[in-house]
Amino acid sequence: MRAVDLIRKKRDSGELSREEINFLISGYTRGDIPDYQMSAWLMAAWIRGLNRSELAALTEAMLYSGEVVDLADLAGKKVDKHSTGGVGDKTSLILAPIVAAGGVNVPMISGRGLGHTGGTLDKLESIPGFNTALSLKEFRRVLGECGMGLIGQTAEIAPADKKIYALRDATSTVENISLICASIMSKKLAEGIDALVLDVKTGSGAFMKKEEDAIMLAEVMVDTARRMDKKAVALITDMDQPLGRFAGHSNEVIESIEVLKGRGAKDLRDLSLDLSAWMFFLAERTASVEEGRRLAETMVSSGQALKKFQEGIALQGGDESVIDDYSILPSARSTFDVTSANSGFLAATDCMEFGIALAMLGGGRETKEDKIDHGVGLEFHKRIGDRVEKGDPLVSIHYNSPAKLGEAREHIAQAFTFSNAQPPPKKLVRRLVGA
Amino acid sequence: MRAVDLIRKKRDSGELSREEINFLISGYTRGDIPDYQMSAWLMAAWIRGLNRSELAALTEAMLYSGEVVDLADLAGKKVDKHSTGGVGDKTSLILAPIVAAGGVNVPMISGRGLGHTGGTLDKLESIPGFNTALSLKEFRRVLGECGMGLIGQTAEIAPADKKIYALRDATSTVENISLICASIMSKKLAEGIDALVLDVKTGSGAFMKKEEDAIMLAEVMVDTARRMDKKAVALITDMDQPLGRFAGHSNEVIESIEVLKGRGAKDLRDLSLDLSAWMFFLAERTASVEEGRRLAETMVSSGQALKKFQEGIALQGGDESVIDDYSILPSARSTFDVTSANSGFLAATDCMEFGIALAMLGGGRETKEDKIDHGVGLEFHKRIGDRVEKGDPLVSIHYNSPAKLGEAREHIAQAFTFSNAQPPPKKLVRRLVGA
Repeated sequence: MRAVDLIRKKRDSGELSREEINFLISGYTRGDIPDYQMSAWLMAAWIRGLNRSELAALTEAMLYSGEVVDLADLAGKKVDKHSTGGVGDKTSLILAPIVAAGGVNVPMISGRGLGHTGGTLDKLESIPGFNTALSLKEFRRVLGECGMGLIGQTAEIAPADKKIYALRDATSTVENISLICASIMSKKLAEGIDALVLDVKTGSGAFMKKEEDAIMLAEVMVDTARRMDKKAVALITDMDQPLGRFAGHSNEVIESIEVLKGRGAKDLRDLSLDLSAWMFFLAERTASVEEGRRLAETMVSSGQALKKFQEGIALQGGDESVIDDYSILPSARSTFDVTSANSGFLAATDCMEFGIALAMLGGGRETKEDKIDHGVGLEFHKRIGDRVEKGDPLVSIHYNSPAKLGEAREHIAQAFTFSNAQPPPKKLVRRLVGA
Repeated sequence: MRAVDLIRKKRDSGELSREEINFLISGYTRGDIPDYQMSAWLMAAWIRGLNRSELAALTEAMLYSGEVVDLADLAGKKVDKHSTGGVGDKTSLILAPIVAAGGVNVPMISGRGLGHTGGTLDKLESIPGFNTALSLKEFRRVLGECGMGLIGQTAEIAPADKKIYALRDATSTVENISLICASIMSKKLAEGIDALVLDVKTGSGAFMKKEEDAIMLAEVMVDTARRMDKKAVALITDMDQPLGRFAGHSNEVIESIEVLKGRGAKDLRDLSLDLSAWMFFLAERTASVEEGRRLAETMVSSGQALKKFQEGIALQGGDESVIDDYSILPSARSTFDVTSANSGFLAATDCMEFGIALAMLGGGRETKEDKIDHGVGLEFHKRIGDRVEKGDPLVSIHYNSPAKLGEAREHIAQAFTFSNAQPPPKKLVRRLVGA
């Protein structure tokens, strides 16, 4: 078998066999197939597409390019959730303790923020001492003790994905549903889970701006998981505005703890409980999603989820006093309110602009090497459908560097659209895929 | 400007500006743009295509990636011919002395054979001492002395093409009309010529099997040459059967000298004279193509072309006695005749099979590093339309290694198709493009 023939086959819209895809991925991971052949194949795959069985083979080959965490000796089911990313999306910090408190293991391998979206690892690292770089051995121990663990991708997990992702980034082959799916699923299935709940964002703050693209991605991810004998369901959720009231790392940790205390923004609480409900149901912890939802609510109202979060923070080396004392988190020195220049109903937001503004303030990274300022953040005062009067504060910017404020303000001020008539309310969960 | 953005633009079927293409090619030649980005761009270009102005820009950028031979101090016009390659195609060895004898300079930078086609350089190197690796300075001197020079691509000529061609070969991005055109034209225009006659082969022994593809390639090459202010015309010529009666290196040198002596196969003589005629006309040496044809015939009948070839061989270090003594050329030890198993009219040949068989005998190369056996060869006894009786010799195989004979025989025997009715005669020059 020769790489050059497999490149030609995909170039000519042919279907690659499982053996052929495995040859490519394992050869590339080992370094036998050079970058320039892989990038040509990726471009051909980007343009010509991969069908469902090629996609399953690709995911499988990437998954088995490294270690699959063996959690067989861990009692009970293992379930995870993956979100395609958005602004203010902090549900992992809320649902992991809810689900673990409810008796289901949550072995969560997360990513870092890049571009306009935040990353779970970055958020957790605003808690002093919190170590997201556990070895797989430590990860297993933490999971065994408290039922949840939140770490980053290790060198052992799907090394093919790590190598391919870097190549895709440099060769404009990122935005392709099959390649995105294989990248996500190879990592997630390497966690040794039984089931996966997918939160596929759509709207102005999501990677998939169009709902049809989000549905397509959701379908291929659910299909791929099932081809590999994992339960899966996807929720297509709204990202036309930020999730919850806050964006920024410390801010989002606080907001997550608030939800675990039974408070916090309604949309964030609702989505966290919905996702938890599906995780309980897929783990066969509850007989229905509705029952899962009630269990999730109980975990919050009883304080067990909050306690679980505290336990998990401590086990990963974090300062657990954060639960009661938010002042230990990094914070921003100054605040500036962006006020409305118009009166009317808030009709739409260009939600990605908030993510870009946050990154500009230092709360995001342009390249993987950038350091993050965990203290900066945004507080959103209005939601779509709200009545706004001229001069009302729209967003409070918590910033450290006045030099960075100006451009961030511009991005935020431009992100609002008003109307005279009140727009219909936004549905948070737009659709279920695979339910 | 960033390579990743230019890859995306082509991926999304966008049109690249001249500056953008120049950025890519010059960056790649310098080594600032890595192979893996170039190969992704090439695959996108292969699939999405390049329009005529992108192609002209690509050709120009590749051309100016190295030195353009300055022949300004050489009196008279400079004209070359390029063939897309086939089996038995040795017209360069015939027309170069004809045209040079007629007073027009022929600065010819040629290639080597690869796969089933022969290369001019390899053929010339069967003449003992003949040096095709002249420096540009020596090339200029030889040209100045005798009006013709036949060398290989030097490091100074279109280095971008050399680098890109190797990458295309390894990434299945070879067979694309735009990329083929840019590769050919960047080298040919680097010769410092005023005009170019293109011989675009079509048929079973050509790269372009379909006439419509050959016409398309011819059109883009003529267009590209004209956009760069060079005169150009293309002849679409038949390669459904070998050109002339012989294939193989020594064999083809002998057959070329025979044509220069006024003998040789009619098809080879006709095509060589036709191509010479167009070269004279484009060089404004004659007022018409017909007059060019008469001049070419005179150069042969008067012996001036033969004398010019002898002079050129000597100037490039070759043993000029070859003109009168073919025995100084490498030859094969044994001969085997493939005879016909059928009676009927020869209706078609799978001409590529002859090229493959010749390569198998040692008269071709699979990789650029392979050595060539100049002595082996094929002699074709029948042409399409000829009456053949069972047992008639079809092809005489001149071979050295009996071990290599078996498979070569198979390929040759399979290459003939017979019919009961006599097929209509084949037209050698099927069409003119740009005339």
